[in-house]
Amino acid sequence: MGFSFLPKETKFFDLLDQQTCNLQKAAAKFRQLAKDGKFDEEGAKAMREIEQEGDTFAHEITDALNRTFITPLDREDIFALAHEIDDIVDYINSTTTRMKLYKLTTPVPEMQQFGVLFEDAVNNLCKAVTGLREISRPRRILDYCIEVNRLENAGDQLKDAAVEKLFDQVKDPITLIKWKEIFEVSEVILDKCEHVAKIIESIVVKQS
Amino acid sequence: MGFSFLPKETKFFDLLDQQTCNLQKAAAKFRQLAKDGKFDEEGAKAMREIEQEGDTFAHEITDALNRTFITPLDREDIFALAHEIDDIVDYINSTTTRMKLYKLTTPVPEMQQFGVLFEDAVNNLCKAVTGLREISRPRRILDYCIEVNRLENAGDQLKDAAVEKLFDQVKDPITLIKWKEIFEVSEVILDKCEHVAKIIESIVVKQS
Amino acid sequence: MGFSFLPKETKFFDLLDQQTCNLQKAAAKFRQLAKDGKFDEEGAKAMREIEQEGDTFAHEITDALNRTFITPLDREDIFALAHEIDDIVDYINSTTTRMKLYKLTTPVPEMQQFGVLFEDAVNNLCKAVTGLREISRPRRILDYCIEVNRLENAGDQLKDAAVEKLFDQVKDPITLIKWKEIFEVSEVILDKCEHVAKIIESIVVKQS
Repeated sequence: MGFSFLPKETKFFDLLDQQTCNLQKAAAKFRQLAKDGKFDEEGAKAMREIEQEGDTFAHEITDALNRTFITPLDREDIFALAHEIDDIVDYINSTTTRMKLYKLTTPVPEMQQFGVLFEDAVNNLCKAVTGLREISRPRRILDYCIEVNRLENAGDQLKDAAVEKLFDQVKDPITLIKWKEIFEVSEVILDKCEHVAKIIESIVVKQS
Repeated sequence: MGFSFLPKETKFFDLLDQQTCNLQKAAAKFRQLAKDGKFDEEGAKAMREIEQEGDTFAHEITDALNRTFITPLDREDIFALAHEIDDIVDYINSTTTRMKLYKLTTPVPEMQQFGVLFEDAVNNLCKAVTGLREISRPRRILDYCIEVNRLENAGDQLKDAAVEKLFDQVKDPITLIKWKEIFEVSEVILDKCEHVAKIIESIVVKQS
Repeated sequence: MGFSFLPKETKFFDLLDQQTCNLQKAAAKFRQLAKDGKFDEEGAKAMREIEQEGDTFAHEITDALNRTFITPLDREDIFALAHEIDDIVDYINSTTTRMKLYKLTTPVPEMQQFGVLFEDAVNNLCKAVTGLREISRPRRILDYCIEVNRLENAGDQLKDAAVEKLFDQVKDPITLIKWKEIFEVSEVILDKCEHVAKIIESIVVKQS
């Protein structure tokens, strides 16, 4: 095997970047489905494929952790990051499945807005994860995390407004049950983004 | 700067005490709103202000962690405590918002009882957090945590009884959906208190 | 006190085995109740007794951690394992209580299938926990964890199918609310099993 100037440990950052890239794919796909109201069999299938690819990345990271002696961050932290990023993808996928199952296939402004929030939050998380390569410059990383927190707050408000409108306008309980759940799980996706931001913040705090 | 007998690290305990003080304000406000059934715009606004103050305290702790080399407890633990205490305040606030949004503005005995449980649990958490200053005397700290667990169990039973009564007496599905959610999130507030108690217990276990 | 070849620390594994044994009792009881549709006062009482026994085991482990200087795994990890296993039992118990409270006392095929999944997942967790005694052979432990992940996926699909059928067939909103919740909390039990599997995986990763 050849000589390399690159320390081996960069592979963990590469693996994490691959995983956040996949998360970006999931968020972009969701935004597009929400825009067109296409939560049908085809849309759900496309999302499921992204989710399964995400599982592969998470397992690769676990395997790499098992085979590597020195890691650039605490191994528990890499493990937690990989699994919680995977969890966001899982949740975007299960929200998509749920909308298909409930046959909610008309575009709805609130879901379009959630789609935009998801994509923004995920893009900030990606930048924060990439930033971990240069943990000696924590300010920028923390700024991305703060932006994720802000987007999560915006999601809270969006959900509150959506649910309030729902109870004001929808009189059929079964329709109300379906949409209420969709708005709630959408907000949970942003909670999960915030949770990953907190893991990143705690890594930065520990190393500082 | 003058000479001080006090080690600098006591500031973390001071910051945590400020934060738990704010948590006590939130719990006391909730009990009062529940007593009067005043989950209106004004009540929600007062609670939101307490919640925003809580955010400030949590950020102060994170900042202090970033600027401090030696901490009296593991930095991850201080970080986890600060964020999970903040999470309880967030949840009390979002329950208040939800009740306003659902226009549930009559005093209800179950919510009054939840209000009392919240305040008791929070007061015990505060004492446990203060107790961390003297971690060499773990027994008292653990006793406060056990009391929080007991109150969480009482909350479970209160919720079960409230939901059972709801299904027996309320025939309008939309009213039922609203109250069922409120009873459930109220119980989650106590779950979150128990979660903070577990973090405190795990800190004590680790240091013992 | 006599001389012993056995290192004292094996007691933690013994305590964890007792606790997982109790978890197996809870899962077996649930499967049986689901088979007969016997979520009545008597069934709920039997489950509550198992849950209370579980609390005792969890507290014994915490106490032992407080009294022991050298532990075979990181004390935080033993603590987390003990509490999260306890959490699964709590959740099986609260699902049982909920079904009794909703008076859902006819055998339903989906709940029978959930009962089988719970028992399979729990049995794999038990083997994984026992495997921690020989952490130098991580492959087998990880295989049990992977099987738990697979069962959690099966639970997701079962829930989706059950909820879809529910919305297709049940027109009474209150009946629908009850069953929807039961299917959802049943899936959460498998999520919690997967969560314990992740803790075990992270212990293995850390020690490897």
